[in-house]
Amino acid sequence: MKTAMIDETHNPSLTSWVGSANGHSDFPIQNLPLGVFSAGSELPRGGVAIGDMILDLAKAGRSGLLTGDAQDAAIAASGPTLNPLLALGAGPRRALRRRLSQLLATGSDDRRIVEGLLYPAENCTLHLPAAIGGYTDFYAGIHHALNVGRQFRPDNPLLPNYKHVPIGYHGRASSVRVSGADVRRPNGQRKAPDAETPTFGPSQRLDLELELGIWIGPGNDLGSPIPIGEADSHIAGLSLLNDWSARDLQAWEYQPLGPFLAKNFLTTVSPWIVTAEALAPFRTRQPARGADDPRPLPYLWDETDQDRGAYGIALSVLIRTTRMREEGQAPHRLGTGPATNLYWTAAQLVAHHTCNGCDLNPGDLLGTGTISTPDDSGVGSLLELSRGGKAPITLPNGETRAFLADGDELILAGRAVADGYVAIGFGDCRGQVTPALAL
Amino acid sequence: MKTAMIDETHNPSLTSWVGSANGHSDFPIQNLPLGVFSAGSELPRGGVAIGDMILDLAKAGRSGLLTGDAQDAAIAASGPTLNPLLALGAGPRRALRRRLSQLLATGSDDRRIVEGLLYPAENCTLHLPAAIGGYTDFYAGIHHALNVGRQFRPDNPLLPNYKHVPIGYHGRASSVRVSGADVRRPNGQRKAPDAETPTFGPSQRLDLELELGIWIGPGNDLGSPIPIGEADSHIAGLSLLNDWSARDLQAWEYQPLGPFLAKNFLTTVSPWIVTAEALAPFRTRQPARGADDPRPLPYLWDETDQDRGAYGIALSVLIRTTRMREEGQAPHRLGTGPATNLYWTAAQLVAHHTCNGCDLNPGDLLGTGTISTPDDSGVGSLLELSRGGKAPITLPNGETRAFLADGDELILAGRAVADGYVAIGFGDCRGQVTPALAL
Repeated sequence: MKTAMIDETHNPSLTSWVGSANGHSDFPIQNLPLGVFSAGSELPRGGVAIGDMILDLAKAGRSGLLTGDAQDAAIAASGPTLNPLLALGAGPRRALRRRLSQLLATGSDDRRIVEGLLYPAENCTLHLPAAIGGYTDFYAGIHHALNVGRQFRPDNPLLPNYKHVPIGYHGRASSVRVSGADVRRPNGQRKAPDAETPTFGPSQRLDLELELGIWIGPGNDLGSPIPIGEADSHIAGLSLLNDWSARDLQAWEYQPLGPFLAKNFLTTVSPWIVTAEALAPFRTRQPARGADDPRPLPYLWDETDQDRGAYGIALSVLIRTTRMREEGQAPHRLGTGPATNLYWTAAQLVAHHTCNGCDLNPGDLLGTGTISTPDDSGVGSLLELSRGGKAPITLPNGETRAFLADGDELILAGRAVADGYVAIGFGDCRGQVTPALAL
Repeated sequence: MKTAMIDETHNPSLTSWVGSANGHSDFPIQNLPLGVFSAGSELPRGGVAIGDMILDLAKAGRSGLLTGDAQDAAIAASGPTLNPLLALGAGPRRALRRRLSQLLATGSDDRRIVEGLLYPAENCTLHLPAAIGGYTDFYAGIHHALNVGRQFRPDNPLLPNYKHVPIGYHGRASSVRVSGADVRRPNGQRKAPDAETPTFGPSQRLDLELELGIWIGPGNDLGSPIPIGEADSHIAGLSLLNDWSARDLQAWEYQPLGPFLAKNFLTTVSPWIVTAEALAPFRTRQPARGADDPRPLPYLWDETDQDRGAYGIALSVLIRTTRMREEGQAPHRLGTGPATNLYWTAAQLVAHHTCNGCDLNPGDLLGTGTISTPDDSGVGSLLELSRGGKAPITLPNGETRAFLADGDELILAGRAVADGYVAIGFGDCRGQVTPALAL
């Protein structure tokens, strides 16, 4: 298992001459996440976030400041998607990171030139970082699986396959959108448990799902599985992901082939790929399995992966209702929990996905599944918080929510933290609920 | 509901000066299906099958023989995928068909020029007709659902949602291949019902699934459902589709989120899009629902669709084992059944898929689900024929099959027939099973 190395780009004493990058920014010089942006009417191209600025990778590629692999990476990132850059793998990505770290560091001799590559983020539009050929959503958040399973099977919440197979399904790539897209409440079929027949109309149980998104780098050819020991080198980086879900549609449609219209109306990702390189200091040991847990089959097991396969990322869900917005209140934090609450590592998800020969390609997106805490301190869905809708939560202003109401704005946030390192963030993963289309 | 009209291109007395198109060809002048081909080292581009020849649409676009919509269609089909042509919708597609019908008809004044646009199909490579952004597989073959359901729930084979909701799930677009691709037996996790723990290894229950593939034309924007009355205009045409399935992987993995690795190792489609225009004479009344069947919700119901929503296509499955090949035997026909054995029409699948706002895009592919007869005369999977593997079938040469063996070649065939019209075919949907990768 090759893991991204910790090097001078992670030095906690590094600061940037971009002042907004120092202090509590999501994007200090230790982060340097990759995305796609446009300014005014110019064409979208790759960029790197630094404080409240964006460095233009297309311009950087023409600046004469880069050479070798770093230059190749910038050229690959000069178009409207990062797929060509993701296809190059870790080497060029790391070379670009190291060079940009030098150029953006306090004291850089090239500051005057680099200033010409920067745009204020507030004047830019952010786009999906890649053209997503395939989107797969997993179910690796074990406390989510337990919390939800308990609502249906109190004595036996996990299905027999859960601790053997990383459960996943194909999502819809075409409806993945970048943070900020409205989530229109979907219409659909649903049948109340006591109703004779289904009806068609707006979902009454619209929910969020807090997940991490995993962006695939080089990938594999059809028929050539990625061994667990090599899986890490195909993970380009992470984003936040909100797998919006219509629980009433899901309950009625999902047997026997799984979720479909309950999920494919929208999936939101945060705009920046926080790279595997940036995340290296925040890798941590995968939580130990229980004494009674089965040891996974060999194709899913790698000691190095167990040692470094989890991510020390604090994940939060915030909500702001229409009334809160009107009254000028800040979003309310529903909870915060660690991303270590995953039963399977990202490498295990990649190895499993490809073990039958299925191909993964640059720009493909994997969702981890909803990440929740065992208790209510950091759960990733209202389905869990409201006990399947039976126990609505009360917000500080007295409003209650079993599921999402029109006008609610949901914000996912993430922050990677580790002793001795500068914390890095992900940027918002945000969406506001708009009313269903009239029938 | 706008349906493709029957016009002079369907005239049964029309013949072509391409002699091989007359007689029992899949591709008489009444068909003119769309595909992507390459000749030698030339770049792939759009083509039209006529007898045993392929007409080059890129060259046709430069020939001076086309004008207006027909010319626009040929230009859109000049690249390596038909997505731009599919995006144009029925008008330009129909104009191209009408003009090509004139040019290829016996007695055409332009024969000498058109001859320069033709390539012998045997010298060409066929490619996927479109870059498939999204692939969705449905479960609309009601006898398949009944046959399989009976194996698990003899008294109650259909789940309660089946006759209300067109059940579907997202498949994997990246592993769709054109006819001829080998199907490598997938490795994967499976657990025998009486085993304590799962094992990893080659699937021992590899199966085929006989389906129709539906190619999407213009499609819709996210958030803008396609009403049932307009759905037909988004269906560009049909292919044959083999949804190869590993039943043992499927049984172990599919709860609660549906099939995943059991399906995504390969899906095969026949190379030609038999257009909605070509299929117009073969549209027929959707089989009447039973007296006890629920009337579908209004968003799924359109009288014109019921009147014309089924396709009179005879679908066949043929097998050729290694021994049959070695002994020079022709493929053995396992059965033939009608494509009318679908509980939901293609328009209902499109309307359902988009009713929540999910977008469909040009080149997207929908599978109907396995199409089977109530009896064994035309079932679309070995799971059904062999009663879940318990009753292996015997081939004419004495070999038996519960599921597919390495070396088996499977061929799907389809033929649209209607009184008073020349039958049209689809071309093969073929694949041979190769051994699993060594572990």
